Amino acid sequence: MKKYTDLNKEELQSLYSELEAKYLEYKAKGLKLNMARGKPCSEQLDLAMPMMDVLDSKSVMAAEDGTDCRNYGGLDGIYEAKKLLADMIGVHTENVIVCGNASLTIMHDMIARSMTHGVMGSTPWAKLDKVKFLCPAPGYDRHFKITEHFGIEMITVPMSENGPDMDMIERIVSEDEAVKGVWCVPMYSNPQGYTYSDETVRRFARLKPKAQDFRIYWDNAYCIHHLYEDKQDSLLDIISECQLSGNADMVYEFASTSKVSFAGAGISVVAASTGNIKEIKKHMTIQTIGHDKINQLRHVRFYKDMDGVMAHMMKHAEIMRPKFEAVDSILSRELGGLDIGTWVKPNGGYFISFDALDGCAKEIVAMCKDAGMIMTDAGATFPYGKDPRDSNIRIAPSFPTLDEIVVASELFALCVKLVSVKKLLNK
Amino acid sequence: MKKYTDLNKEELQSLYSELEAKYLEYKAKGLKLNMARGKPCSEQLDLAMPMMDVLDSKSVMAAEDGTDCRNYGGLDGIYEAKKLLADMIGVHTENVIVCGNASLTIMHDMIARSMTHGVMGSTPWAKLDKVKFLCPAPGYDRHFKITEHFGIEMITVPMSENGPDMDMIERIVSEDEAVKGVWCVPMYSNPQGYTYSDETVRRFARLKPKAQDFRIYWDNAYCIHHLYEDKQDSLLDIISECQLSGNADMVYEFASTSKVSFAGAGISVVAASTGNIKEIKKHMTIQTIGHDKINQLRHVRFYKDMDGVMAHMMKHAEIMRPKFEAVDSILSRELGGLDIGTWVKPNGGYFISFDALDGCAKEIVAMCKDAGMIMTDAGATFPYGKDPRDSNIRIAPSFPTLDEIVVASELFALCVKLVSVKKLLNK
Repeated sequence: MKKYTDLNKEELQSLYSELEAKYLEYKAKGLKLNMARGKPCSEQLDLAMPMMDVLDSKSVMAAEDGTDCRNYGGLDGIYEAKKLLADMIGVHTENVIVCGNASLTIMHDMIARSMTHGVMGSTPWAKLDKVKFLCPAPGYDRHFKITEHFGIEMITVPMSENGPDMDMIERIVSEDEAVKGVWCVPMYSNPQGYTYSDETVRRFARLKPKAQDFRIYWDNAYCIHHLYEDKQDSLLDIISECQLSGNADMVYEFASTSKVSFAGAGISVVAASTGNIKEIKKHMTIQTIGHDKINQLRHVRFYKDMDGVMAHMMKHAEIMRPKFEAVDSILSRELGGLDIGTWVKPNGGYFISFDALDGCAKEIVAMCKDAGMIMTDAGATFPYGKDPRDSNIRIAPSFPTLDEIVVASELFALCVKLVSVKKLLNK
Repeated sequence: MKKYTDLNKEELQSLYSELEAKYLEYKAKGLKLNMARGKPCSEQLDLAMPMMDVLDSKSVMAAEDGTDCRNYGGLDGIYEAKKLLADMIGVHTENVIVCGNASLTIMHDMIARSMTHGVMGSTPWAKLDKVKFLCPAPGYDRHFKITEHFGIEMITVPMSENGPDMDMIERIVSEDEAVKGVWCVPMYSNPQGYTYSDETVRRFARLKPKAQDFRIYWDNAYCIHHLYEDKQDSLLDIISECQLSGNADMVYEFASTSKVSFAGAGISVVAASTGNIKEIKKHMTIQTIGHDKINQLRHVRFYKDMDGVMAHMMKHAEIMRPKFEAVDSILSRELGGLDIGTWVKPNGGYFISFDALDGCAKEIVAMCKDAGMIMTDAGATFPYGKDPRDSNIRIAPSFPTLDEIVVASELFALCVKLVSVKKLLNK
């Protein structure tokens, strides 16, 4: 197949008519497809349904230390839930607090607390003229929404397959006291599926921030979300690396079982240094008497330990893998060699990140929508929803069925071609 | 029995020796009693155990509108949970948002948001020199801890059996723009068990606050926590009263099933005007994708409707009533006519409020503690933990067994006598 960029005007014109006709055929089908959000499909959710049986009216509702999980108390979670989630992210049990159903809420609340109370005695951020966050992008839109909500200025940092541009991060963090944090999805990153290299993690751990209250927001959301049994990325433990570098307090790590058990009814965790954990609990005790311990108990009795969790994750992988591979193979078949787009084939996570020709992403997503397919808004993966190159599109293959994925990927590829040809014609 | 206040010095001396001997006997018993916190006892928690059976691995996990309760989404809760909790507090379903396991968290978060973002466009409270809250007291210690945590100045407002001193509240609210809120537990108040009179509720609804962002924090925690089937307090609906007075946006109402189903694993609700609900959701969507809908579904399928809830509450009452009556009858027997203390016999709620002679509360609680009985810290029911008269003690009879309650009440009465005699001797 000839590269589109090598076609002359007449070839492009004729191609355009051909593609447009195909597009109109798709449009006539009245499709209803959604590849927008990283939601598990119901087959995945079914995997955890036996969890609904582990507690019944005859169950002993006591945790291992005798705590009645039905009553108040237990600010940082029951011990066995702490252990399970600590094992999941590879940290010590004393470094974690188990929270409610969403790590997003913990991240939001950490920033809210920093706004009103500062961090370990620093000036509350709300009292400062300017607070800034570094935002490796493309990244997770809900992270960027939190910082935007609190009026925090976001600085986009380019991503590569080894992680964010560390030269840039090191420089800015050491120079600018207004920079108080950086958003990271270090493993199977959202949306690119990249895992930070050991070198990247170590450079993060060795940062010398000008601001004493600078923190790395390490959202390890996809830490065990492998697509393969044999091809798995691995990530250094940032908590111990920070400790080794004399920066123990510089990082908060987050994770949850939202995409392990139930997306709306999992349990979440924050991990950090002893000092940070103490500080977080001081705030938390004002906000809650404790999170849902029955759900913690349910998770622990169902999974038992990390072997149980990992066996469960391989069942997820069996459902997810064919979907990811279908997208990849259709994009390869339809777009391979055309020079109008690149995409990443990740070993895990929830997304396939696609980069179209500059200036095409918005229109591709709009054309998909017109033909009945919802994609994540173009730009959503960048701070303020603005992709400077208008190029990145996040594909979420988890929720639709495999049959739908096939149609969706073909339609997507068609829209990419059509918009690219249009772009090349207008050159 | 002669009033202690009528005894002469010798009589008091001889009484003191007699009481002290008894106290030493108690001390020798090595008791371990706790009447400190309003925790349900395990018999109460057992009442909800059948809830553990309503969902199993074969259950259809869809809400009435088809929402898969296992997946992301549903920011404000599933419809049927909204309806159940709206019915519980007597408001319209469109005026509520169902949240996580604790209404305390909603209240905390409402204040945190007001600090960082203001209220409906007002200046963020964190940017103001001074923010004040009115605190009817004795009241709920965790309310006061929230306002203290955010550096909000607390103004104590005296309570009577009809509710807070409304003359004082009307005056301050209309004069001082720094006053942004008032904490209320309007039904079976914590700790006194008082229910605000219709007149009090209407005066609240008709407040003319100087601050546009003034809000009533209406914590209707005990709205259905009656102790009797035939003697029940009732409370006017503040939401509709505020609407009638042209003050629709002036109130947030809170409640939960923490003391209905499970103290650590209930569901909670915030109710407010359409405008407030819209504003709250705007913030919430940054903080969470949605709360635990499986737990919402579990509650709805278990209780079905308010008849189901009320039948359940009568089972609670059967467990609670004898405990409350035991405390009351022992206090009457031991302290009746002595003129050294007064207490309230409530029709509902979780507490019995005791007022000792001025300057005696701290020492009574300390003596109880020395004899192995934990009471709520004296002063905890007042802002900053400081009871100006050092008189109020909160008795929480729910958690101990009836046998323990009997011993605990006798020991408490003994400590009251001992400290009162000491006080009278030192006069």
